[in-house]
Amino acid sequence: MISPGSTLRALREGKPLVHQITNYVVMNETANATLALGALPVMAHAGEEVEEMARLASALVLNIGTLSEHWVEAMLLAGGSANVRQIPVVLDPVGAGATAYRTATAHRILGLVDVTVLRGNAGEVATLVGAQAEVRGVESMGTGIEAAELAREAARRLGVIASVTGQVDHVSDGDRVLAVSNGHALLSTVTGTGCMSSAITGCFLAAKPGEPLESAAEALAAFGVAAEDAAVGAGGPGTFHARLYDALYALDPETLDGRAHIDEL
Amino acid sequence: MISPGSTLRALREGKPLVHQITNYVVMNETANATLALGALPVMAHAGEEVEEMARLASALVLNIGTLSEHWVEAMLLAGGSANVRQIPVVLDPVGAGATAYRTATAHRILGLVDVTVLRGNAGEVATLVGAQAEVRGVESMGTGIEAAELAREAARRLGVIASVTGQVDHVSDGDRVLAVSNGHALLSTVTGTGCMSSAITGCFLAAKPGEPLESAAEALAAFGVAAEDAAVGAGGPGTFHARLYDALYALDPETLDGRAHIDEL
Amino acid sequence: MISPGSTLRALREGKPLVHQITNYVVMNETANATLALGALPVMAHAGEEVEEMARLASALVLNIGTLSEHWVEAMLLAGGSANVRQIPVVLDPVGAGATAYRTATAHRILGLVDVTVLRGNAGEVATLVGAQAEVRGVESMGTGIEAAELAREAARRLGVIASVTGQVDHVSDGDRVLAVSNGHALLSTVTGTGCMSSAITGCFLAAKPGEPLESAAEALAAFGVAAEDAAVGAGGPGTFHARLYDALYALDPETLDGRAHIDEL
Repeated sequence: MISPGSTLRALREGKPLVHQITNYVVMNETANATLALGALPVMAHAGEEVEEMARLASALVLNIGTLSEHWVEAMLLAGGSANVRQIPVVLDPVGAGATAYRTATAHRILGLVDVTVLRGNAGEVATLVGAQAEVRGVESMGTGIEAAELAREAARRLGVIASVTGQVDHVSDGDRVLAVSNGHALLSTVTGTGCMSSAITGCFLAAKPGEPLESAAEALAAFGVAAEDAAVGAGGPGTFHARLYDALYALDPETLDGRAHIDEL
Repeated sequence: MISPGSTLRALREGKPLVHQITNYVVMNETANATLALGALPVMAHAGEEVEEMARLASALVLNIGTLSEHWVEAMLLAGGSANVRQIPVVLDPVGAGATAYRTATAHRILGLVDVTVLRGNAGEVATLVGAQAEVRGVESMGTGIEAAELAREAARRLGVIASVTGQVDHVSDGDRVLAVSNGHALLSTVTGTGCMSSAITGCFLAAKPGEPLESAAEALAAFGVAAEDAAVGAGGPGTFHARLYDALYALDPETLDGRAHIDEL
Repeated sequence: MISPGSTLRALREGKPLVHQITNYVVMNETANATLALGALPVMAHAGEEVEEMARLASALVLNIGTLSEHWVEAMLLAGGSANVRQIPVVLDPVGAGATAYRTATAHRILGLVDVTVLRGNAGEVATLVGAQAEVRGVESMGTGIEAAELAREAARRLGVIASVTGQVDHVSDGDRVLAVSNGHALLSTVTGTGCMSSAITGCFLAAKPGEPLESAAEALAAFGVAAEDAAVGAGGPGTFHARLYDALYALDPETLDGRAHIDEL
């Protein structure tokens, strides 16, 4: 059942711990988004402790935005620990396609860790399904039928829930496709809003782990509604960014279902 | 003598350099809190330079929020340099108790560095005094007599000024206990406000190094008063966070003593 | 020709990718400043990918604010790649003079990489030209003739465009000196505004690579005008910081030339 309001309510009651191994640029931002929403972030990347930390958590979020080898190894260790405990794992393949190292690392994690949700933009996801040759105009895929097909194809080939964000977001389990059309143009003017959406996906998966397709779409709708609220009265990217945490904190479970635009294609 | 206003005035006149080896999540935040208050932050962690940097500073703040081995070694080197120069050292044992690695690292630093002030929440400090078995309901210790006793016991057993923050903060040298009841609930909605309170403790110790019990309590009162000011007109965690730096910058030494709630128990 | 408005217009049309290897404290801030201005930031530091990433970029910004050996090696690799492609390179020698390691690293980069613009404060730049002995009162150099001479001398001795920021900024190619007098006192109350000015210098060099003296001065004028706008209505460092991104985003190419104060000395 799709109900972002119910999942948000469960999240605020359960206050799940969400372990994040993410990039240097957005650590503060994803931790604050997690906290403002009502979950508890923990950031830990040392090989000595990531398995233990992942054992305390209700979800694990891996983000390759600023890579280096020790961090990749920590992600693999934490991912293994999460898989043993069967907690959901989100992978954000930041920059896949930009360098060979990023693309290879995303594939390496997908190969060694059972990833629940892959959350990326169309270009990143297309790279990982090997669709570069077939896909023209990644930018233009934001709203059209191609993005829905990309999500479905990625889910099938990679064995994940594919969450492809853009002007309209598409989330697929390889069969069904949910389209989420909340959000605001100012999101693209602030670094790390994609990373935040991955962190919030982890939070929603932790709150409702049994229905990852629905949880992943609900997370994007909730984040999009918060962005819509934050944009009201914002003077630009900086004040929008500050107001985004206010809006996540103020998200009302009672009205969220009515404001969320989630359509099954 | 307890006078946060006088210490703040001394800080703004002296502009002490406060060397911080802290975690990736809050580096920007603790640097900005230090700067807004009127001191000068410097963040450096390379083994090649930490001893030299610690020799330039008036206080050293160590924070284990995102650990790895190289960073721990840098903390030990800088701590040794600070001890030789007899400048105050603050340790923030972020997450002690959550993983064995964090608990062991906090103990390792406490064993090898002469720490002036240990600033943590009740759970972290209880872990380090080995009080887990005896302490029930860490959360509930925020205001009661147990928190005061925890601070006193930690100070005695660990040979530090123990600064245990919560709804009411308790600072003890093992004999006297000062309770600080400034602050605001929004502090707990922003990542790194605990880390900021440790950084500000370092600033106040630098400004009045001879009375660490008093300086540590004054720092928490000043930070709490700034939080009270920041909350006025804040729309939630994000705008509160931005306004917190405004409030630290605007803290008035003339009125601070009257607004600080510091009681000797 | 000096026209910050024209260069900003070109930047917004071309949306150049600016590769930044910078310090942990300000990564989010310089990425957001770059994005708000209208360029695209990418942060990558792994030895495995920096050369490839630098090949995608239109400018490279190196910042030694939080050093360690792996990062220095990555900077040298990326710098070499940028030089082969003849894209502009900005070096921000944060803290040169504070420790021997920082001074030596800045010299090492200057020796091995063809740096286009060196952007630092008077103390950092004076250290690198070996002028410590001759220069008294680094702070006081902000406005006077000494700062202009320092910029000229640094440019000559180090073979760079020297961009020395202070209350008035001085940019020199060793012959001409441009003085930029935009800006606001609140800039010095926020960590990383110097680093932001280096990032924005990289953006302007990417937008107009053939005239680095002019581009570097235009960048400082544009950033200074944004700071002037951000200060209007700001309540202190925190809200000024948020509004600074709003102001960069709202910078109007049509009026920028009239507001920029760039004088050839």
